[in-house]
Amino acid sequence: MQSGNADKMFTLTTSCIDQPGLVAAVSGSIAGHGGTLVESHNHTDAQQRWFFMRNVIGGAPHFDDKGFINDFTKIAEKYAIDWSLSENKQAERVVILASQSSHCLSDLLYRWKSGELPCSIPCVISNHENLRSMVEWHGVPFHYVPVPKTDKREAFASIEALIDRHDADTIVLARFMQIMPPHLCEKYAHRLINIHHSFLPSFIGANPYQKAHDRGVKLIGATCHYVTTDLDEGPIIEQDVVRVDHSCSKDDLVRLGRDVERSVLSRGLRYHLEHRVLVHGNKTVVFN
Amino acid sequence: MQSGNADKMFTLTTSCIDQPGLVAAVSGSIAGHGGTLVESHNHTDAQQRWFFMRNVIGGAPHFDDKGFINDFTKIAEKYAIDWSLSENKQAERVVILASQSSHCLSDLLYRWKSGELPCSIPCVISNHENLRSMVEWHGVPFHYVPVPKTDKREAFASIEALIDRHDADTIVLARFMQIMPPHLCEKYAHRLINIHHSFLPSFIGANPYQKAHDRGVKLIGATCHYVTTDLDEGPIIEQDVVRVDHSCSKDDLVRLGRDVERSVLSRGLRYHLEHRVLVHGNKTVVFN
Amino acid sequence: MQSGNADKMFTLTTSCIDQPGLVAAVSGSIAGHGGTLVESHNHTDAQQRWFFMRNVIGGAPHFDDKGFINDFTKIAEKYAIDWSLSENKQAERVVILASQSSHCLSDLLYRWKSGELPCSIPCVISNHENLRSMVEWHGVPFHYVPVPKTDKREAFASIEALIDRHDADTIVLARFMQIMPPHLCEKYAHRLINIHHSFLPSFIGANPYQKAHDRGVKLIGATCHYVTTDLDEGPIIEQDVVRVDHSCSKDDLVRLGRDVERSVLSRGLRYHLEHRVLVHGNKTVVFN
Amino acid sequence: MQSGNADKMFTLTTSCIDQPGLVAAVSGSIAGHGGTLVESHNHTDAQQRWFFMRNVIGGAPHFDDKGFINDFTKIAEKYAIDWSLSENKQAERVVILASQSSHCLSDLLYRWKSGELPCSIPCVISNHENLRSMVEWHGVPFHYVPVPKTDKREAFASIEALIDRHDADTIVLARFMQIMPPHLCEKYAHRLINIHHSFLPSFIGANPYQKAHDRGVKLIGATCHYVTTDLDEGPIIEQDVVRVDHSCSKDDLVRLGRDVERSVLSRGLRYHLEHRVLVHGNKTVVFN
Repeated sequence: MQSGNADKMFTLTTSCIDQPGLVAAVSGSIAGHGGTLVESHNHTDAQQRWFFMRNVIGGAPHFDDKGFINDFTKIAEKYAIDWSLSENKQAERVVILASQSSHCLSDLLYRWKSGELPCSIPCVISNHENLRSMVEWHGVPFHYVPVPKTDKREAFASIEALIDRHDADTIVLARFMQIMPPHLCEKYAHRLINIHHSFLPSFIGANPYQKAHDRGVKLIGATCHYVTTDLDEGPIIEQDVVRVDHSCSKDDLVRLGRDVERSVLSRGLRYHLEHRVLVHGNKTVVFN
Repeated sequence: MQSGNADKMFTLTTSCIDQPGLVAAVSGSIAGHGGTLVESHNHTDAQQRWFFMRNVIGGAPHFDDKGFINDFTKIAEKYAIDWSLSENKQAERVVILASQSSHCLSDLLYRWKSGELPCSIPCVISNHENLRSMVEWHGVPFHYVPVPKTDKREAFASIEALIDRHDADTIVLARFMQIMPPHLCEKYAHRLINIHHSFLPSFIGANPYQKAHDRGVKLIGATCHYVTTDLDEGPIIEQDVVRVDHSCSKDDLVRLGRDVERSVLSRGLRYHLEHRVLVHGNKTVVFN
Repeated sequence: MQSGNADKMFTLTTSCIDQPGLVAAVSGSIAGHGGTLVESHNHTDAQQRWFFMRNVIGGAPHFDDKGFINDFTKIAEKYAIDWSLSENKQAERVVILASQSSHCLSDLLYRWKSGELPCSIPCVISNHENLRSMVEWHGVPFHYVPVPKTDKREAFASIEALIDRHDADTIVLARFMQIMPPHLCEKYAHRLINIHHSFLPSFIGANPYQKAHDRGVKLIGATCHYVTTDLDEGPIIEQDVVRVDHSCSKDDLVRLGRDVERSVLSRGLRYHLEHRVLVHGNKTVVFN
Repeated sequence: MQSGNADKMFTLTTSCIDQPGLVAAVSGSIAGHGGTLVESHNHTDAQQRWFFMRNVIGGAPHFDDKGFINDFTKIAEKYAIDWSLSENKQAERVVILASQSSHCLSDLLYRWKSGELPCSIPCVISNHENLRSMVEWHGVPFHYVPVPKTDKREAFASIEALIDRHDADTIVLARFMQIMPPHLCEKYAHRLINIHHSFLPSFIGANPYQKAHDRGVKLIGATCHYVTTDLDEGPIIEQDVVRVDHSCSKDDLVRLGRDVERSVLSRGLRYHLEHRVLVHGNKTVVFN
């Protein structure tokens, strides 16, 4: 009897080759150990024959999580399921990397402080000092790590040490404007989130608003994605656009784009923190 | 062995008081009779403690639908589940009622003819003759039933007879512009779909574009809903809006609104035909 | 020669009964006094036979604003034009009234501090203390004026005194949650801006998110409007919506709505501050 | 006295290097010859120092168009203005080129027949026979010109001859799926309109929906643009997007994309037919 779980919630994500009976096996095991399905999503990628599932399990009245884990480990072996179970109360630790632009960082701090983002923010790291006061007003430690133009190895070693010291589950590049070295992209695979200021795959790389202005597009956008070693080519979590027209200068695009960046990043991060994003190959399943 | 089902697909919808073990019971029964879950959605309304589920069941390799129905009837009794199982190939029969405006009707006919809407259209009924040629060009019978301004009983008796003679599963009011009598709203409950030319609950009743113009709103919309005896108050299936501004005359609103009406109606009808819409009280769950 | 105006910009707004030759008269007078048309919008309301125009005048190389004012005063008399000319550098003074909710207030403060909103904020007035620290961190004075449930006259007299002492051009109700007394609505006509948390005219009055949830709408919205003595009936400046679905609880609507409220209010206020909004009757012309 | 013009409307578009006094000169000349400004838009591209203007001139009570043309020819010479004046009644002649897909063609024919598109359609040309019946039902001549895979010169000579014989003002590629030869792109510059089934510059070239599916984007779009000799690189008139997710197969993208293509093409064509689109370099000014 795990009556201690009555107030708890757990999220189970599973992913494996599509096979008959998966939903029955997973939901049967949850029900068999006293759990309630509060939310349940699944998706089968018919082309890749891959199955994805996300369950939010309510602990009331008596979910036996240890018994479930024992049982589900055997099921997962049988079906070759990649899975994770986490208690929802255990907020993920999110370290944010920023540069001089404040719009994404201030938005994340605001949402975190108002309880909208289910995470803790152990620190912010920046290669500039200008946002220190804003960060510290929120009660979050601020670490200044200058990144030189040429040899950046030492700077990224410091950044890596800070991330690890703060035990980050997730790292967010909130307009960090630096290309992460490949070994960190790999070390933090599927935990390193970037906001790119264009509707990818349009305008990959630097200065997307200038490129959008030059091309005369009628909508501009932003893309939240996991970082991989291929610049701006990682799995896309969320995108959105806003209408612009001929009267918009490049600076207008920058201003209008800031709002899209903020909302796309906060939505994408929220999906990630709630374990709604399952990655397969270079694509995501987002159960929202 | 129902090897004859290998190429078939079925859709099962269920709705009942929320109870532990529902997903396990339903998916277990499907798997136990050789069915594959191709698509599966569920939702729990925590406030009303009500559970909704929609499963698309693949018949391969050997789904025993008769055995499943036997078994599931017992499960449904135990949990007091309201359910339906339909084979996807059995296209619903959709009778369309129209008046003089062609935009919604022509859009539905186009989508049906191009194979986008999974239904058959046994006939179109109208209280005007002007759309006959368009309807008949699509190979669909056209019935003219004039509706007088005063005593409409006879007209609606004719319409009811046509609907029943054509064995309609679903009736669509494609800008029919007549208020359906209460006994038909009740007879065709959850099968009678209307498109209202405003973003309900704004601008209930007649002349919504004039009202929107007078109020100076910056967006106009359309609403697809099931018809009930309360005018424009039935369960909403789908809505959308389009941006307008001060330069739009009332006629511009009408023109821009036509596009929203067409797309909202066709989306709403598609959801209905694919059994994606589950009604509970005056609200819908739409698994799309 | 007003060479001192070479770096200046002015905005001229005009509104009058539609008559032939208005654009020629206005633009001729601007050109005749050495001004350049940087931006120019006009609109004729054919139904009401009313003409609206907004010109941004560049002072280079030698705009003689005094001479223009002399000349234009005569033109305005001849055509019965309602007009105003303001120098763009003279930032409007915006006093913000807030209650306990921080999302709109923090967004306005952020945009103001980052230079996005062309205004000064002489103070924030609130009937609660909880946002003081945030406001003061931005370097803006915070005035606490409790508003009792019953006799509110004294509280509103204090608020009026603060508004007037701070010489406010514009007053923003950033989720103030109090109904402004009629004499203040009239005193600050077309200068008092509210954000309503619904897509008006849907869900007028209190608890719009609860009403939206009960009705089962598929989109929720927000409306920025000038306050009049008719609650939620004033001229609409800007509106927007966001998609929701059956899985959204009322709290989800509140959360999603906050983002729409913030963006609609900041856009509407920006239009107002840039003199892009011309009011006629209960409707607005927004030259954006 | 041109009292014969009282019921007429004219559209004047002008484009030139930005200079002081342009609006005054143009509007003064219109007013001086008895014209009324029904609609007026202008835009200055500050970066390129280029001025754009569009005026809709009402002929009431006595617009002397011949006198205006005489006068304006001199003004245009003085300021080096590129201009055109057309009577709004003179509907543009639009020849549509299509292939096997019907969605864009049927949408244009529907809008034309219902009076929404201000044009005449002298003929449709296609390299397939399957849409003949639909076109002819609308009362529009249908020309079948097969385009072989290898030597296409003869086919395009026939197409060119048909376009010229039908005296086309505008040519629309309604999913024609053939690359126009460079000499026709140049001959019909700014009169040849294409709908591309992606949000350009994403997914240039063939199979954009497959590419979008492979990349896992969360929005798909369509682009209406003038055709130039650079494939999919011409000036963009209009774009729009629609949200998609992981559950969308490539066929779902195609289906959802059809609706965006239709609406983007019809909007772009409408802007073009109403002389709302002014091209400068590779960008457009769209006065809508």
